[in-house]
Amino acid sequence: MTDMPLEPGPAPVTGEVPVAFQDPTYRAAVVDLLGAIAYGEIAAFERLAEDAKMAPGLEDKTELAGMASTEFGHFCALRERLRELGVDPFAAMEPFQKPFEAFHARTAPSDWLEGLIKAYVGEGLSADFYREIAAFVDADTRTLIIDSLEDAGQSEFVVDRVRRAIEADHRVGGRLALWGRRLMGEALSQAQRVAAERDALSALLAGGVDRPGMDLAAIGRMFTRLTENHAKRMEQLGLAS
Amino acid sequence: MTDMPLEPGPAPVTGEVPVAFQDPTYRAAVVDLLGAIAYGEIAAFERLAEDAKMAPGLEDKTELAGMASTEFGHFCALRERLRELGVDPFAAMEPFQKPFEAFHARTAPSDWLEGLIKAYVGEGLSADFYREIAAFVDADTRTLIIDSLEDAGQSEFVVDRVRRAIEADHRVGGRLALWGRRLMGEALSQAQRVAAERDALSALLAGGVDRPGMDLAAIGRMFTRLTENHAKRMEQLGLAS
Repeated sequence: MTDMPLEPGPAPVTGEVPVAFQDPTYRAAVVDLLGAIAYGEIAAFERLAEDAKMAPGLEDKTELAGMASTEFGHFCALRERLRELGVDPFAAMEPFQKPFEAFHARTAPSDWLEGLIKAYVGEGLSADFYREIAAFVDADTRTLIIDSLEDAGQSEFVVDRVRRAIEADHRVGGRLALWGRRLMGEALSQAQRVAAERDALSALLAGGVDRPGMDLAAIGRMFTRLTENHAKRMEQLGLAS
Repeated sequence: MTDMPLEPGPAPVTGEVPVAFQDPTYRAAVVDLLGAIAYGEIAAFERLAEDAKMAPGLEDKTELAGMASTEFGHFCALRERLRELGVDPFAAMEPFQKPFEAFHARTAPSDWLEGLIKAYVGEGLSADFYREIAAFVDADTRTLIIDSLEDAGQSEFVVDRVRRAIEADHRVGGRLALWGRRLMGEALSQAQRVAAERDALSALLAGGVDRPGMDLAAIGRMFTRLTENHAKRMEQLGLAS
C-alpha cells in the first residue's frame, strides 16, 4: 500500500497513511511540506525566544516566551506525523535550514518593534502560503497543517504594541513601513529559492495527470492574494505597505 | 479572611486561599517564594533557548527547545496562582530579577557542554532548595511548587550527552568538573544574597511562635543535603565534585 514494509517490524507505523501516499512524488512533496513547516516552527521558536530578550519589561518578555512555546507545540505535532510516515523528521527538515537561516540573517531585527513586526508579518505570510498549498494535499495532512498555522497570539499582541509605539512617536511609522516591505521582499526571494530546489514541492503545486494543480495564471493569482493579505496586515499595524 | 476585599468585585478571586494566609508575613513569604520560582522558570526558559543555539545538531536543538517550553508551562501555573492570590505576578517576580541575572552573568557557558551542565546542576540545586522550603508551606502551595520543579527532561538528556563527550575525550572531564564547582559556588552566593534581602522568606525558614522552622543547626544540615545531592549529580555526569 505504501513504500513501507508490510510485515510486522520493530517500529510499527501507528498513524493512518492515506492511499494518495502510494505515489512516491506525492509522498516526497508532503514530507517536504511538513519538513519545511516543522523547520519554520523551530526557527520561529528561536526568533521569538531571541526577541524576548529585547522586551521592554517582564510581562512582554513572558508573552513572547509563551508564543515561542506554542510554536514548539506545533512542531511536536509535525514531528510526530513525520515519524508516523516512517520518516526521520530531522532529515525532512534539513533541506530548509539554509533558506530559513538566510532569511533570518538578512532580516535580523535591530530593536524590539522590528522583532515584533517580523514575527507578525513573517508568520502571517508563511501561514497564508502554506494554507494555499494545503488545498492540494489529502484531508489529514491539510488538517495538521491548518492546526500548525494557528496564530500563537502574535497578531493581537503585536498590533497593540506597534500601534502604541506609533501613537507615542509618529516618526517610527516610516521606518517600520520600510522594514515591512523589506521582510516581504526577502521572504518571497527565499520562497522562490525553495521552489526552485525542491522539485516534488513544485510538482505538487503544478499538479499531475490525476491531480489538480495551478497553472501559471493561478500561481500569479496566488501571489496577488499573498500580497493583498500582507498589505492588510501592514494596515492593521497602522503602516503603509 | 485575607487582605483582599470581600465584596463582589469585577475580578473575583477564583482559587482557594488557605487560612494560613491570614498572617501577612506568611502571605508575603509565599508570594516571594512563588515569585522567585516563577522568575527562575522564565530565566531557565531563556537559558535553554539560548543554549539551543549551541546545539551540535537539529535534534539536540529541539530537545532543548522542548525543555524550555516545559519550563514555560511551569511558569504559567505559578503566574495563575499568584493572580489567584490577588498579586501582580510580575511585581512578585521583580525582586529576583537582579540575583538571577547576576548568577547568569557570572556563569555564562562558553560551549554546549557547559550549557548542558549548567542546566542540569542549576535546575537540580534550585529544585532541591525549593523542595526544602516547601516543607514549611501549606499543602496547596507545596503541591504547586513540587509540580513546578518536575524535571523537564534535562537529567537523562544531559547525563547522556556529557558522558558521551567524556568518553570521546577524557580531558574534558577536568574542565567540566571545575565548571560544576564554580556553578555551585555562584548559586550559593546568590541564594545567600536573596536570603539577606528578603526578610519574609528568611522568616519562613526560621519559623515563628505558631509555626515550625529551622534553627541554625537545621539550616546547616539542609546545606549538607544540598551539597550531597550536588555531588551525586556530578557523579551521575561522571565528574568529580
